[in-house]
Amino acid sequence: MPSAQLRIAVLIDEGFDDDEFSAMSAQFENAGARVMIVAPFTGRLYSGRRGRVDTACDVAVHGTRAAMFSALAIPGGYSPDRLRMRHAFLDLIRDALATNIPIGAVGHGPQVLISANAIKGRTITCWPSIAIDVKNAGGLYVDRPVVQDGGIVTARKIDDIGPFVEAILRMAHTDSR
Amino acid sequence: MPSAQLRIAVLIDEGFDDDEFSAMSAQFENAGARVMIVAPFTGRLYSGRRGRVDTACDVAVHGTRAAMFSALAIPGGYSPDRLRMRHAFLDLIRDALATNIPIGAVGHGPQVLISANAIKGRTITCWPSIAIDVKNAGGLYVDRPVVQDGGIVTARKIDDIGPFVEAILRMAHTDSR
Repeated sequence: MPSAQLRIAVLIDEGFDDDEFSAMSAQFENAGARVMIVAPFTGRLYSGRRGRVDTACDVAVHGTRAAMFSALAIPGGYSPDRLRMRHAFLDLIRDALATNIPIGAVGHGPQVLISANAIKGRTITCWPSIAIDVKNAGGLYVDRPVVQDGGIVTARKIDDIGPFVEAILRMAHTDSR
Repeated sequence: MPSAQLRIAVLIDEGFDDDEFSAMSAQFENAGARVMIVAPFTGRLYSGRRGRVDTACDVAVHGTRAAMFSALAIPGGYSPDRLRMRHAFLDLIRDALATNIPIGAVGHGPQVLISANAIKGRTITCWPSIAIDVKNAGGLYVDRPVVQDGGIVTARKIDDIGPFVEAILRMAHTDSR
């Protein structure tokens, strides 16, 4: 019996990691999921930090609810430093946690989870520069390619995107809505 | 009686904030101080995040001691995210704290202070995205242009560079060596 198509919200702002964004988007789509780019505003393009990728915004973050999506995914780069300053993204993360929508974050992505107070007591991996911030936020930092703890899955870098995407798809299918 | 020329170490890696770097360097030099660029390696150029400034490295960080300088200054941008991953920069920061050499950090610069465990119990300002990281590290975050607490002076952004430089120069002159 075919399941409904998964809708994966990819949360970005200016300066996302081009490769992580491109790889996760392609792998979600190859698995039959629909990727929806959630950014601050529609009607403009967002560029990767290396200037290799420009993407439009499918859904402006204001007014979104986690229930509109099967899962959220946050690429790394410099974008998480911007996302964490916007209440609408933090509200979306907290809504996802409260409603058991899986959340994934790669590289610097866990910075957004820190600002949403979603780290405490969880096992988390990330880009090494922010490991101390994860620990100071009450997280248990580990240096492993992909870590799942409850509804949150984290990964370190571009090399980890394959198993990261698989984990999110597995969680999104399991938590049937 | 003329005092010896101050030597200000400006700590950078790739992706520093072009404007903060240029403004502080110019203002230190206008005040008669000598600016010394301390970066991971000599023999290569380091570029600002906006691609407007390229600078050579005067002194490779490995082998430096705080006593070689009158003060340390860390511009913001993406550079602090790299500096905080190199033990040699963290050792230099800790050596400066131990020997009462003033340290300044702007914008994302306090990320390096977090990694050097230099934040706890201190009043600190910074770029707002990392305010929660400063608080989680035991710092008292305040939103003010420039804050001095003991040997550490912090500022939020490019607009604060004037009083930031003045505070560092004042501290460097007071702590005579």
